This record gives sequence, C-alpha cells and structure tokens, in this order.
Amino acid sequence: MADVLVVGSVALDSVATPFGKVREVLGGSATYFSYAASFFTTVRLVATVGDDFPDEHLVLLKERGVDMTGLQMSRGRTFRWVGEYGYDLNEARTLDTQLNVFADFKPVLPSPLKKTPFLFLANIAPELQLDVLRQMERPHLVALDTMNFWIQGKREALLRVLAEVDALLINDGEARQLAQEPNLIKAARSILKFGPRTVVVKRGEYGAVMVSDDHFFFVPAYPLESVFDPTGAGDTFAGGFMGYLASQGVVDQATIRRAIVYGSVMASFTVEDFSLRRLTRLTTAEVERRYAAFQELVRFDI
Amino acid sequence: MADVLVVGSVALDSVATPFGKVREVLGGSATYFSYAASFFTTVRLVATVGDDFPDEHLVLLKERGVDMTGLQMSRGRTFRWVGEYGYDLNEARTLDTQLNVFADFKPVLPSPLKKTPFLFLANIAPELQLDVLRQMERPHLVALDTMNFWIQGKREALLRVLAEVDALLINDGEARQLAQEPNLIKAARSILKFGPRTVVVKRGEYGAVMVSDDHFFFVPAYPLESVFDPTGAGDTFAGGFMGYLASQGVVDQATIRRAIVYGSVMASFTVEDFSLRRLTRLTTAEVERRYAAFQELVRFDI
Repeated sequence: MADVLVVGSVALDSVATPFGKVREVLGGSATYFSYAASFFTTVRLVATVGDDFPDEHLVLLKERGVDMTGLQMSRGRTFRWVGEYGYDLNEARTLDTQLNVFADFKPVLPSPLKKTPFLFLANIAPELQLDVLRQMERPHLVALDTMNFWIQGKREALLRVLAEVDALLINDGEARQLAQEPNLIKAARSILKFGPRTVVVKRGEYGAVMVSDDHFFFVPAYPLESVFDPTGAGDTFAGGFMGYLASQGVVDQATIRRAIVYGSVMASFTVEDFSLRRLTRLTTAEVERRYAAFQELVRFDI
Repeated sequence: MADVLVVGSVALDSVATPFGKVREVLGGSATYFSYAASFFTTVRLVATVGDDFPDEHLVLLKERGVDMTGLQMSRGRTFRWVGEYGYDLNEARTLDTQLNVFADFKPVLPSPLKKTPFLFLANIAPELQLDVLRQMERPHLVALDTMNFWIQGKREALLRVLAEVDALLINDGEARQLAQEPNLIKAARSILKFGPRTVVVKRGEYGAVMVSDDHFFFVPAYPLESVFDPTGAGDTFAGGFMGYLASQGVVDQATIRRAIVYGSVMASFTVEDFSLRRLTRLTTAEVERRYAAFQELVRFDI
C-alpha cells in the first residue's frame, strides 16, 4: 500500500443542472480526487484556499485521513467556479471563474511529501504541474489531467510535462484536440508518442477507454437513470484510479484495468448528487457492490 | 440451427466519406443483413429490386446461400440512396433518395418462408413490418429496426408493431426520440413498456448497450484507426446478432450477449471499406479472432 499525492484546486462551486442548483458548495479537482482516493489509500493534498474557506470542509477531508500539510491558507478569497449544464450533461457551461488566491498558487511541497510514490497532477497550468514534478523525488507513477484551455494556450509547456508522465487522463474531445486528429484511437496513439505509456480517455456517459502500446481496454459508464450533476466526475475517476493503483503498489496491465473500473465506480457515485454529497454517504461495501455490477455489465464470455 | 428471414431494402448506394467515394454500389438494409447473417446460418431475403439490378449482386448473395425466393423483381429502377459523411462519421447526410420500385413494395411471403423461426424486420415503413408479421406463422423471435423518419411520421403504426416484437434494435438518438426522454437508460426502460423484452441501442463509435427488465449489457465498438464508411454498420450488426441467435436456436441472456458481440464484430468489418467489400473478403477465422479480441477489450477480472 503506497500513498498518493494530488496537486490541484480546492474550490467553492455554484452549479445549476436541470435537476436543481447549489451555491458555493465544496468543489475543486484536488477535493474530489482526495475524497475518492481516500477509499483506497492515504492521500496527501497540495492546494490553496483563502481565509474564507469553511472549516467544515477541512474537517470532512481530515476525517477521511487526508494529509493536509500541503494545503496553503492564503489571505483572500477561495477559488470560485460557477457553471451550468443542460440536458446534455456531457459538457459544462462556465458562467464565471474567480481564481482569487488560486491565481497566485505556487505549489511548495513540504519535505515529507516529496517522496510520495504516486503523484496526480490535476488540471492546473502545465508550468505548475512541471514545477511540482521537479520537486518530487523519483515518484513511482505520475498521472496528469489537463483541459482544452491549456491544450490551446500552453501547448508547449503541456508537451514538456507530458514527456515526463506515465499516464494521461483526458476527455474525449480534448484527446482529439491535443493530437489534432479526429479518430480517437489514432489520437490516443499519437499522444503515446508525446511520452505517457498509458492514455485513459474519459467519455462521459460512454465510459472510458485506455490505450497503451499493446492494449486497449474499454469500460462503460454505469447505467444511471438519473445523473444529477456531473461536476467532479473526472476528478473522482482519477481518485479511484490512482487510489486503487497506489493501494496495490504494483502497476501492471491487470492492475491498471481494475483501477479504471474503480475510477468508473467512484465517478458513478459522484454524479448521483451535487458536490461531494453522495461520496460522503458512500460505504466501501457499496463500492465493492458496484464494482461487481460492472463485471456483470460487460460479461459475455459465459 | 434455425433459419432467419429478413424483410428490408436492396439498394444501389452512392456514398462519399472523407476517405473516398463510390457510385451505385450494392447497399440496402436487407443486403447488409443477409450477408452478415450468412456467416452464421441460412438467410431468407424478402425485398424488391428493379430490372436494372446488376446480376453480379444477386450472384454474390446466392453464393452465400441466401434464399432469394422472396426477392421481387419489378419493372422499373432499383431503390437508390445518395449520402455523405463528414469527419464525424456517426451521422449520414442524405443527399438524395429515389425510392423507385421500393415505393410500391408490398412484401408477399412465399409459403415456405412463413415458417421461418427468426424474423428481422429491417428499417421499412411500420405498416409493412406489421403486414409481414401477420403473414408469419408463429416465429420464435422477431426483431425490428426503425428510424427517426417513422418515429416522427408513423408513431402509431410503429407502436402497434413494437407491441408484437421481441427485440428492438435502434440508434441512440432514436431511442431517446421514441421514448421522448433524454436519459438513455430511462428511454430504453420506457421502450420495454411498449412491448419488446430486449432493447439494443446502437451507439456508433461508442458501441452498443442492451437493456432488458433484469439486465444491462455493454459492448464497445472495436477500436478502428480508420473507419472508411459507416454505411450498413447497423444492418450488419443486426445480421450478426440475428444470425448468431438463429444459429444457436435458443434465446437466453447468455446467447443474447454473445449475439450482440457478434453483431459488433460484423459491423466492425463493414465500416473498414465501402459497400460490402470488406465482408466479401471476410473469413470465419477473422470473425472468430475479432470476437476473441472483444473479450480482451473488456476483460478486467484478471
């Protein structure tokens, strides 16, 4: 069992979906990631919040055993995101982004964190991702998430950090954009040439596909009759994925496949409610039951 | 091993994709279906062609053992379809449809065909589908395909025939349209209430999902680096699905799951070239190899 370190955002989200809306609830990539990964292993969080950040959110993460020594408390307001979704829940429309203290975020890793074997670089500026990577001491596995904003605006920096990571977790459309190739399979193969040995493409309601030099692996999304709010699905997926890998200590094809299923399991719970609400009610038994349900979803060799 | 009967179209297609174009090549739902199903069992075809229909196409189907006694040869021109695809190969743009002899198609089943145990009603007017169903003598399993045109314009007739079929094969968007419900899982469940015990939703590059009262089953699309022409993919899928079911004689959950994979296998070959070109070069050994590849694509229980 190894630990996992995440660098990303902790935010206050205001979200509207066709099924309801919430104001200034707990959000952020590092938050969703940490909570999900905490079902599998010990998580260390590196992020920044302002002095307006509610204590109860810190308590929530601490109670999950998340190591918060890397959380910077800065003077000012916490990062805020305002977004909405239509009936096509695959894509958020951003209505407002207030970076606040996140604008000056310079991740500084406390010494004990530098030796963490599993590192997840959540979706932040690629220069910051590279900076964190430089502070680490020989991590066993490094995975990275990114988005269209960086692919378009910081392509060179992104390619520099990509050259040094083991796994890329990325959306469907962003994979095509990064590779400049409409065919997803060709796109994923091109991305392998940028550096990562493993590319995991997240496809929202269509599940995920993993592409490596020798393997393809597909997992569907769990068939939910009501997707309440997709915010955080990708980061929860990453948390389940990295948390499981770290818990196993080894990284081979079989472990990666199971990790992708655990990622899908965790994401399937997140979207059942706003913010981290469903995750905070979640039990390990439920996680295992849904993992077993995924086995049933794809089994035909019977 | 049981036989399968298909009622649908035989056409001459002109198709342009980003990768090339062809003029007046063999097409039509019953054609793709028959050729694909012929890998698994004996197929009986009910359709109509004009007196301009090239003999070589008839020979092609006869050589696969397709029973053509239900093919009506009418005075006039064969049904023609002209369409094109952009880089998003999921949807065809129809440029021209010339129904020709198909406009007066009244399927009349020769007596020996009426007892065929497996029946596929390809995408034709629901009144014709119902008319064919009335001529049959207690078929063991009836499956049906349809499209947005009938869902919108002939909803009542479609619901009437749906009430009498066992399985519906339908596209993603069309399932939502038929059920008037944006969530695909809810949509499929609503459709079950219309009559079919099994709904198979075809999702193009995202594979297929089967929904029944007690089960979900997902299969991905085969990861192809070049999809040349998606025309006929759905009908080939249906051919593999029904052909395999008929070859097994029994219809249970395990057989249906394998049949969906064989449908996906056959469709994955069709899209590798224009018209039936790839299918005419296809061997049973290739079919079995790709079936095994599908097992690898989703296996995580290792």
